Amino acid sequence: MVAFPFHIHATDGAARTGVLETPRGEIRTPAFMPVGTAGTVKGLLVDQVRATGADIVLGNTYHLMLRPGAERVARLGGLHKFMRWERPILTDSGGFQVMSLAGLRKITEEGVSFQSHIDGSRHMLSPERSIEIQADLLGADIVMQFDECPALPAPEAEVRRAMELSLRWGARSKAAFGTRTTQALFAIVQGGVDEGLRRRSAEALVAEGFDGYAIGGLAVGEGHDEMVRALEFTTPLLPSDRPRYLMGVGKPIDIVESVARGVDMFDCVLPTRAGRHGQAWGDAGPVNLKGARFAEDIAPLDETLDCPASREYSKAYLHHLVKSGELLGQVLLSWHNIAYYQSLMARLRAVIAAGTLSDFVAQFRAGLAKRDA
Amino acid sequence: MVAFPFHIHATDGAARTGVLETPRGEIRTPAFMPVGTAGTVKGLLVDQVRATGADIVLGNTYHLMLRPGAERVARLGGLHKFMRWERPILTDSGGFQVMSLAGLRKITEEGVSFQSHIDGSRHMLSPERSIEIQADLLGADIVMQFDECPALPAPEAEVRRAMELSLRWGARSKAAFGTRTTQALFAIVQGGVDEGLRRRSAEALVAEGFDGYAIGGLAVGEGHDEMVRALEFTTPLLPSDRPRYLMGVGKPIDIVESVARGVDMFDCVLPTRAGRHGQAWGDAGPVNLKGARFAEDIAPLDETLDCPASREYSKAYLHHLVKSGELLGQVLLSWHNIAYYQSLMARLRAVIAAGTLSDFVAQFRAGLAKRDA
Repeated sequence: MVAFPFHIHATDGAARTGVLETPRGEIRTPAFMPVGTAGTVKGLLVDQVRATGADIVLGNTYHLMLRPGAERVARLGGLHKFMRWERPILTDSGGFQVMSLAGLRKITEEGVSFQSHIDGSRHMLSPERSIEIQADLLGADIVMQFDECPALPAPEAEVRRAMELSLRWGARSKAAFGTRTTQALFAIVQGGVDEGLRRRSAEALVAEGFDGYAIGGLAVGEGHDEMVRALEFTTPLLPSDRPRYLMGVGKPIDIVESVARGVDMFDCVLPTRAGRHGQAWGDAGPVNLKGARFAEDIAPLDETLDCPASREYSKAYLHHLVKSGELLGQVLLSWHNIAYYQSLMARLRAVIAAGTLSDFVAQFRAGLAKRDA
Repeated sequence: MVAFPFHIHATDGAARTGVLETPRGEIRTPAFMPVGTAGTVKGLLVDQVRATGADIVLGNTYHLMLRPGAERVARLGGLHKFMRWERPILTDSGGFQVMSLAGLRKITEEGVSFQSHIDGSRHMLSPERSIEIQADLLGADIVMQFDECPALPAPEAEVRRAMELSLRWGARSKAAFGTRTTQALFAIVQGGVDEGLRRRSAEALVAEGFDGYAIGGLAVGEGHDEMVRALEFTTPLLPSDRPRYLMGVGKPIDIVESVARGVDMFDCVLPTRAGRHGQAWGDAGPVNLKGARFAEDIAPLDETLDCPASREYSKAYLHHLVKSGELLGQVLLSWHNIAYYQSLMARLRAVIAAGTLSDFVAQFRAGLAKRDA
């Protein structure tokens, strides 16, 4: 029995649109999850995040376990209450972030021991501890298995070793998660850009049985074309009746191409990070508001978006805020970018429902190509 | 004829409460004006500022003339449109800020030449140029005369020289302002903490005739007690039927004591600056949310305030945001502080109307004394 019903309302080629039902509300798919790393989608009020159309946000186990601490969040009533987001939350397992602490972490069969980047204190993450943090202490709605994700390119033996370890950690994660039904556990398929390894990983995890399947280990250095190629042979390996989540992706074009290949869920820090650096995203890519050409441009970023940051402020004003290093510039551009991403997801859902996704994808690619020309 | 009708609804001792009518809306007095230095009340949306009860915000001529430039703001439709604040705006004259550019500015009878702190470019401010920037280019509702404000303590001769120069600049400001009636021009009384100099300044400016009278040159190093003493002999020198504005003040206790001495308007960067540094203000003074004692404090900052930042977020969460250097912490604490200041002004207006200001002042002082004990 799976935790959350997943209703697919329409398909168009490999793409699907539907609703994942959770006790804290529906997640419309394809879905983009804004990243609330440390209990906050950087710079934004939860009401602002919700108003963009986000159904779910992501929290980072690594950051939250170090500060304010997972037990502390639990004593304060859980992550939803702590950050005042009452809708679904997905937490990552912490694996990806501790792996990137080169020199500060040690991987064993048991798990990963590491030093905090904040104060150097020593910590341990294992499948059992990650699940305890995510499911019991933070109280996530969607919990990710603990995995190891190597950066690409990497030798085949290294990608295989990490994938096999992730399978064993996946089984231990499932055992630790137990028979919960008000929370869901997602597996993470590894194997880099190697079709055989992806098949081995997917088949083992599907045999184990999870509530959803993430594709990990992409968007880690292999490039857009390799990522798309890996998706083409990976998504067909996953059960069509469960949500598929491409972790850490990505740019709008990455999302569009991935949806066309059957991916249902995404997360990425790009919209908020870009916003803090003065960038506003749109179908034609990002623009940097610092550019002198915006100094007297009275047009808003995008009047078609139902977001005050996109509709109500002139580019000239945003240019001024960015040039002046004003907090409000970071807030407004982060807000616009999240709204843009959510509008992209809404358009993808609509064209899948209408059966016109391939036209949309072609137009989207053409818009980018025109810009690059 | 004065530009804006000023209706005093009630008095209590020297204190008054009323409404200053402007074409862009009413200003309830005593009023606190959040500072929107460079076209933004730092970190806050104008809707958030307005929701706290602010009727008017302040803009800084010095900052705006340098970036984005006064002519540019004018081409973009004026400061109200630029920053999306449709209610009244008061601009300072730029005098105070250029005076503080020690070593980078030169004062003559004509005005002040100075170098930009941003790019070192050379600029000139005179009474005529300041009024042009404020009234014509930025389009402020309340325009301040150009003045010179010496830091205290200063030799009597220096305070006198600056005061006399400010009188001549006041007359030139008035001539440059002309006979406008949809904008108001306020004089600035100078003279430090010297009663004779304040009298000389006030009498000359009142004889000249302005729409309102600011008290400049306080809160510049003389200390709270000296400031209050100077107010006691200065406010009676000003016409009772025109608004009195104490520039750059201040802490809540400064505001309370000044209102009791007949001041109607205030501005200060303190609430937003303190918010960016993790401080939350209340009647008992500021608290720094970084303090470990807040780590698991589930109480909000102040449930009595009609502001989401004050009512809906736990101190534990704010503590976490501040400790983590999160933008949202700066936003929420700035918002709370502005809301607190506005609530203080609303309470002052209410107790003046009720004739119980002296009780309120005594309780306010006692609360602070208890904290200090």
